Amino acid sequence: MNPIKAVVFDLYGTLYDVHSVVARCDALFPGRGQEISNVWRQKQLEYTWLRSLMGAYAPFEDITEHALRYTCNRLQLMLSDAELVELSDEYSRIEPFREVPGALAELQAMGLPLAILSNGSARSIRGVVSHSGLESRFAHLLSVEDADGVKVFKPHPAVYTVAEQKLNLPRTEILFVSSNAWDASGARHFGFPVCWVNRAGNTFEELGQKPDHIVSGLDELADWLRPCH
Amino acid sequence: MNPIKAVVFDLYGTLYDVHSVVARCDALFPGRGQEISNVWRQKQLEYTWLRSLMGAYAPFEDITEHALRYTCNRLQLMLSDAELVELSDEYSRIEPFREVPGALAELQAMGLPLAILSNGSARSIRGVVSHSGLESRFAHLLSVEDADGVKVFKPHPAVYTVAEQKLNLPRTEILFVSSNAWDASGARHFGFPVCWVNRAGNTFEELGQKPDHIVSGLDELADWLRPCH
Repeated sequence: MNPIKAVVFDLYGTLYDVHSVVARCDALFPGRGQEISNVWRQKQLEYTWLRSLMGAYAPFEDITEHALRYTCNRLQLMLSDAELVELSDEYSRIEPFREVPGALAELQAMGLPLAILSNGSARSIRGVVSHSGLESRFAHLLSVEDADGVKVFKPHPAVYTVAEQKLNLPRTEILFVSSNAWDASGARHFGFPVCWVNRAGNTFEELGQKPDHIVSGLDELADWLRPCH
Repeated sequence: MNPIKAVVFDLYGTLYDVHSVVARCDALFPGRGQEISNVWRQKQLEYTWLRSLMGAYAPFEDITEHALRYTCNRLQLMLSDAELVELSDEYSRIEPFREVPGALAELQAMGLPLAILSNGSARSIRGVVSHSGLESRFAHLLSVEDADGVKVFKPHPAVYTVAEQKLNLPRTEILFVSSNAWDASGARHFGFPVCWVNRAGNTFEELGQKPDHIVSGLDELADWLRPCH
């Protein structure tokens, strides 16, 4: 592996816990928060892939609402349009995983430029990062919206290209970090060295790619990068 | 809706029951057949979408094997490479749904050209159809492989275009029939009139499309088409 000159993180599920929404779901539908969150997240991902393929792009925030609407229909939950919008807005207040603030500070102290590359809109990414008070950690907040005119989501190569262009580094010198095995596979296929964050003992996807490194939390990243930096 | 001049069917899950593989899975892992089949099918679909987006096409039959390998890893099932290939081959012996042979005969008797448009390879489609003795019902067996050089799966418009070109009819006169709500949505977005086959009381996807008609089995199709044919 080449020396790593910058680190690019996925946002949803990697730095920030998408299941932060469980408590709010539970408040509306007691005891069903985790089930709602699981179906909602699965459909959110599927709709990003399907709309990219269909050529029917919609912003991530709209897709988040559509996925929640599907979830309510399937689980037979009554939700007014106002509640649906309110619950979808919880995605802008999701929390970073416990070890993330410390790990980012440590990596930044090593002089590594850090960035986020996310399916979210530029506005959503800024909102989530600012809500958690972590703005000063990042040199770049990059959105699929920055892939000019392409209108697709990850794992389309046009999205990963955004990071390569904005960081102005060859892809082989940019470490891509994701908890989503499909995203890690897409980034690896694009040509980034990849670290898969496997907090929950998940199974890696069989998409013809293997991560270069696996950690169980971001706090393991600095120790791994230090020798080759 | 324009008069319908031909009917194009999805294969996997629409004409043929992908969960026909449950019995074979159960024989290998008693009591776990349905669980294995569910994860396997879900991953098979995800991998067709993800590989299309990544630009890393692989034939559907290879993806079926990859998805089974993932399933075994995740469910911690031991399967030799030979058993894995053997179990994947079950997909070439899946059975039509109970009402399908009669429904196809009835539609054919109305003078409607019938076709299949599937993610499978031309060889797989022929194999499945011939194993069930239904070859004489179809005017065309169409594969994603017929989308010259495009190397993507449904719901990419390039795949639906194959049916329009081979049937030599405007898309508005071709009824597309699928049990897969994401496929029905993709076909509707492409411009086909669409019938969704909802045998199991599923929830339609929220992808900005609605089917033109919904049936609970293919035996309801002829009665619906007769008045406008």
